[in-house]
Amino acid sequence: MTSLPNDAPIDAEKLDRLAELAVKVGLDLQPGQDLMLTAPAEALPLVRRIAVHAYKAGAGVVTPILSDPEIALARYENADDASFDRAPAWLYEGMGKAFDQNAARLAVAGDDPLLLAGQDPDKVGRANKANAMAYGPARERITRFDMNWNIVAWPGAAWASRVFPDLPPEAAQRKLADAIFAASRVDQDDPVAAWEAHNATLRKRSDWLNARAFHALHFSGPGTDLTVGLADGHEWMGGASTARNGITCNPNIPTEEVFTTPHAHRVEGVVRSTKPLSHGGSLIDGIEVRFEAGRIVEAKAAAGEEVLLELIDTDEGARRLGEVALVPHSSPISQSGLLFFNTLFDENAACHIALGQCYSKCFRGGEGLDADRVAAQGGNASAIHVDWMIGSGEIDIDGLDADGNRTPVFRKGEWA
Amino acid sequence: MTSLPNDAPIDAEKLDRLAELAVKVGLDLQPGQDLMLTAPAEALPLVRRIAVHAYKAGAGVVTPILSDPEIALARYENADDASFDRAPAWLYEGMGKAFDQNAARLAVAGDDPLLLAGQDPDKVGRANKANAMAYGPARERITRFDMNWNIVAWPGAAWASRVFPDLPPEAAQRKLADAIFAASRVDQDDPVAAWEAHNATLRKRSDWLNARAFHALHFSGPGTDLTVGLADGHEWMGGASTARNGITCNPNIPTEEVFTTPHAHRVEGVVRSTKPLSHGGSLIDGIEVRFEAGRIVEAKAAAGEEVLLELIDTDEGARRLGEVALVPHSSPISQSGLLFFNTLFDENAACHIALGQCYSKCFRGGEGLDADRVAAQGGNASAIHVDWMIGSGEIDIDGLDADGNRTPVFRKGEWA
Ligand SMILES: [Zn+2]
Ligand SMILES: [Zn+2]
Ligand SMILES: [Zn+2]
Ligand SMILES: [Zn+2]
Repeated sequence: MTSLPNDAPIDAEKLDRLAELAVKVGLDLQPGQDLMLTAPAEALPLVRRIAVHAYKAGAGVVTPILSDPEIALARYENADDASFDRAPAWLYEGMGKAFDQNAARLAVAGDDPLLLAGQDPDKVGRANKANAMAYGPARERITRFDMNWNIVAWPGAAWASRVFPDLPPEAAQRKLADAIFAASRVDQDDPVAAWEAHNATLRKRSDWLNARAFHALHFSGPGTDLTVGLADGHEWMGGASTARNGITCNPNIPTEEVFTTPHAHRVEGVVRSTKPLSHGGSLIDGIEVRFEAGRIVEAKAAAGEEVLLELIDTDEGARRLGEVALVPHSSPISQSGLLFFNTLFDENAACHIALGQCYSKCFRGGEGLDADRVAAQGGNASAIHVDWMIGSGEIDIDGLDADGNRTPVFRKGEWA
Repeated sequence: MTSLPNDAPIDAEKLDRLAELAVKVGLDLQPGQDLMLTAPAEALPLVRRIAVHAYKAGAGVVTPILSDPEIALARYENADDASFDRAPAWLYEGMGKAFDQNAARLAVAGDDPLLLAGQDPDKVGRANKANAMAYGPARERITRFDMNWNIVAWPGAAWASRVFPDLPPEAAQRKLADAIFAASRVDQDDPVAAWEAHNATLRKRSDWLNARAFHALHFSGPGTDLTVGLADGHEWMGGASTARNGITCNPNIPTEEVFTTPHAHRVEGVVRSTKPLSHGGSLIDGIEVRFEAGRIVEAKAAAGEEVLLELIDTDEGARRLGEVALVPHSSPISQSGLLFFNTLFDENAACHIALGQCYSKCFRGGEGLDADRVAAQGGNASAIHVDWMIGSGEIDIDGLDADGNRTPVFRKGEWA
């Protein structure tokens, strides 16, 4: 069973280690557990190795759902206008059912982050919105952390050429593969041990923040003067985490963040993005927004403003925060100096916030909280969850208690 | 948007005509109608052209579900025994829901017909059975003809090398592509007109048979002495046909058969297969079975007997007939002299019968019949529908009326 042509620019052994890591550390897939896997068709060499390791781990049945960028483009180039309000709800409802039956979920990222950059932003925005609404049954179970899930990356050819526009395609793909392998720690001798150590470091940070139980965080830096209230009973998480089905997984590979749930009604001030955001095949850059009582009341962007405005109009919760995450400017991904145009990487190179749905796991006793209780404690609900980067080497962060007393958390982008 | 590398052995223009034919004649896809499409990932060049033509026809959203043979093999090579009783029911339930919402269904055939030939037949049989049971919600709507559907073929590389084992891979794929294009009539100047003429020919044959309203057909030939009772109120169909959603489609491209529903309890005698059957990645050859009162009471096969026995044990209806179909030995596909190891082609080269589920459309007023009524008139129900070939140049067929009077239907494999 050959997974890669001999002349492929991607190291087959490291790719296999990434697949094994995704199954063992990313998912900790259990004997008898089914696996639902989404991936670009181009990522088949990785998907095949994931299937091998999943079955070796005792998987029930592995079901890949493969996508193709040219089919997505065929829609923009040929479809009637009405098409852009449609989405395959039946597929996402099916995924929700699979999760209810304890299937694990693995997503392989690797699409061209700017696939739709040349398309009509109104159509792109509407199609993203229709898809986000239809995706509800799957997203709900993922954000509630019902079951073990994981995202890993495939060094897609088009993506590689966005990250390394000056390199020939094969060299670009090789460099992106190496960056993915390094960030995912599969270039180390014992990736599983490396992840244990890394998880312990992230745990130390979240333990420290949980002991402080801040009422709010205050971010200051160029263009940013933002107070992010934290949800009542919020809990900081990072790295390995235990899903409601009792399985401890690492949802993101790579990950460098600790994160928690902001209070949907206690965010005030202005914030400016520090890296471009690739969302649904479009680039949004130079975001500046103002929050009042947790809600975005002004928003603009230097690029992709129409897609941004469509995004925050998805539903009521799309204008409020569902996540705040801390990542030091010295994180390995940040130190690579690369801009990946992919949230899985860029969010792990900078402090970030996410618009939309919160993770109910980020509450003390979160496993037991229903949606009403999450909302009562300040957790946001939405059909979207979109992270964007607000951290840099110039950001200071203070923790505030209920009386407004300040504790330094970050100085110049590093843990204080 | 490039669909095929410049050096591909497949004619890009004919491939595009096949895609257009599948959308326009195969499905007659309607503006606003969604399309659910299954295909091997290898068939992406055809799938992409289908997506283009579907969107040009006004499709809502096109959702491809792509499969990969290496992932299927990874299961046989690595999975626990318990895996082989599992199937992604959630996906098939989702498809059923899509059809209920009037999505059209297009299946691209092209897999290696002997992919699993080297695997444990017990595991293959169990996995096929689990999949057939789980597929129910989709199969039910397809066999009830709720919506327009179509199957077309992609000249898969592994399939091509099975059909032309003595040719180098590229030449084999080119020859299989040409055979598919010829059988699908896309090598003619006006394929749509060619299909209109072809549909008229098939209609003439089914009209003749419907006017006779035979009580049974009697097949005789080497190893075969079989009386196939026809269901009460059966109707012969062939070529274009109107689904319950009112759309007239051609479910199979190619097609050369006229077919109807046998009576599940009135089949008597012995029958020998005349071509090997590729079923679920395994080869079954030299089938000999004996029917009593509609039920298989003895079955053997020269090859693949274990898979056959597992197949007819799927459920009670798996031992009874759900289809009988007439194809002259002079059909173009038969004249090609090729054995395709693929039912879409081989069933259109020979008279055949199918074990399992009947098409309720093959009754007068079939659109209005519920499952109980279909059963009362002799229609069979099962989780399987597997066609196998019993026709040749040596087969004679008589039509029998209720009193046993005989009318010649076929002599030496041709219409009498
Ligand atoms: Zn985050
Ligand atoms: Zn996030
Ligand atoms: Zn047939
Ligand atoms: Zn059939």
